[in-house]
Amino acid sequence: MFITFEGGEGTGKTTLIQNVFDNLKSTYNIKTTREPGGSMIAEAIRDIILNPKYEGVTPYTEALLLAASRAQHLDEVILPHLKKGDIVLCDRYIDSSLAYQGYARNLGFDFVLSINKYATQHMPDLTFYIDLDPNIGIKRIKGRSKYDRLDQESKIFHDKVRLGYLELLSMYPNRIIKIDGNDSIENITNLIVKTIKEKI
Amino acid sequence: MFITFEGGEGTGKTTLIQNVFDNLKSTYNIKTTREPGGSMIAEAIRDIILNPKYEGVTPYTEALLLAASRAQHLDEVILPHLKKGDIVLCDRYIDSSLAYQGYARNLGFDFVLSINKYATQHMPDLTFYIDLDPNIGIKRIKGRSKYDRLDQESKIFHDKVRLGYLELLSMYPNRIIKIDGNDSIENITNLIVKTIKEKI
Repeated sequence: MFITFEGGEGTGKTTLIQNVFDNLKSTYNIKTTREPGGSMIAEAIRDIILNPKYEGVTPYTEALLLAASRAQHLDEVILPHLKKGDIVLCDRYIDSSLAYQGYARNLGFDFVLSINKYATQHMPDLTFYIDLDPNIGIKRIKGRSKYDRLDQESKIFHDKVRLGYLELLSMYPNRIIKIDGNDSIENITNLIVKTIKEKI
Repeated sequence: MFITFEGGEGTGKTTLIQNVFDNLKSTYNIKTTREPGGSMIAEAIRDIILNPKYEGVTPYTEALLLAASRAQHLDEVILPHLKKGDIVLCDRYIDSSLAYQGYARNLGFDFVLSINKYATQHMPDLTFYIDLDPNIGIKRIKGRSKYDRLDQESKIFHDKVRLGYLELLSMYPNRIIKIDGNDSIENITNLIVKTIKEKI
């Protein structure tokens, strides 16, 4: 089973994935991974996308690099683990590209889907979208030391990302489950673990 | 005017571009550049594509990285120079992706065109395709110290690349001019310089 976690900055995805992993690891074989990155080559691509040194990366380039990183990550990590029957928990996947580049950066869902043709052949079985007011999310990450380029985007951009995700929710109602990011991390963890167990 | 140079390995593109530049530089403002690469970010992407360290790069990833590098190179180098009225001579452009990834790696022209949507909005005015038997081309580059990953591909692959270019020649007969790569570098240079002057 291929499960992805989506949401804006500071929605707690990383902690949630760790919690879900801790809850399920004794029962199932689980692989946790993340995008962009997740393999040596994909991480090298990630560095170009997120390193402030490369702040001149254009929206087109960014979308294509993310699609490249995803294609590589699929072949090197996700598909081999799915083939072994593992549960794969992935921090961000194609919905991130659709919400960030397709919607918020105005490249359009169609273009983003077309460059992610390979990923669309391997869609997640389940996607948890952690919904949170960007004001709250951004405040949460302000304390972090690793404050990458995408985090520095304007408030308007993050509002658009959220609207993009809500649009995706209506496009893929059976796959994407909306989670209230204001709830406690314990409650969210329990809800996600319960949902995954039911799906299995 | 935007002019691109295409062909397989060892067809002498780099030398030709230098010769053409030397012939025209006193009369016109000319910018020479190359793909993949041509700007700091595009060169960082180029490194992932060509560095033997990343030999696990899949055909999809490669095609997407090349499209990303091209989009960045367009915005940072090619378009600003064209806007100034310069002649831009570029070593490889979208036809390389069509011949190598679209045709020889079987990703298809349609997919390569779709991920290069931005480049298709800025097609070259003129493309010189240097046609040469891959056996001869490969022999020429064997002596080079910089022997990158793509050069190491099999004979069959290079034959397919050539077939891909010949297919493109029939698709874009007005834009692409086929040059006999067996001719001397002096003759080819003179022919290209003459053609460019006529076009201007």
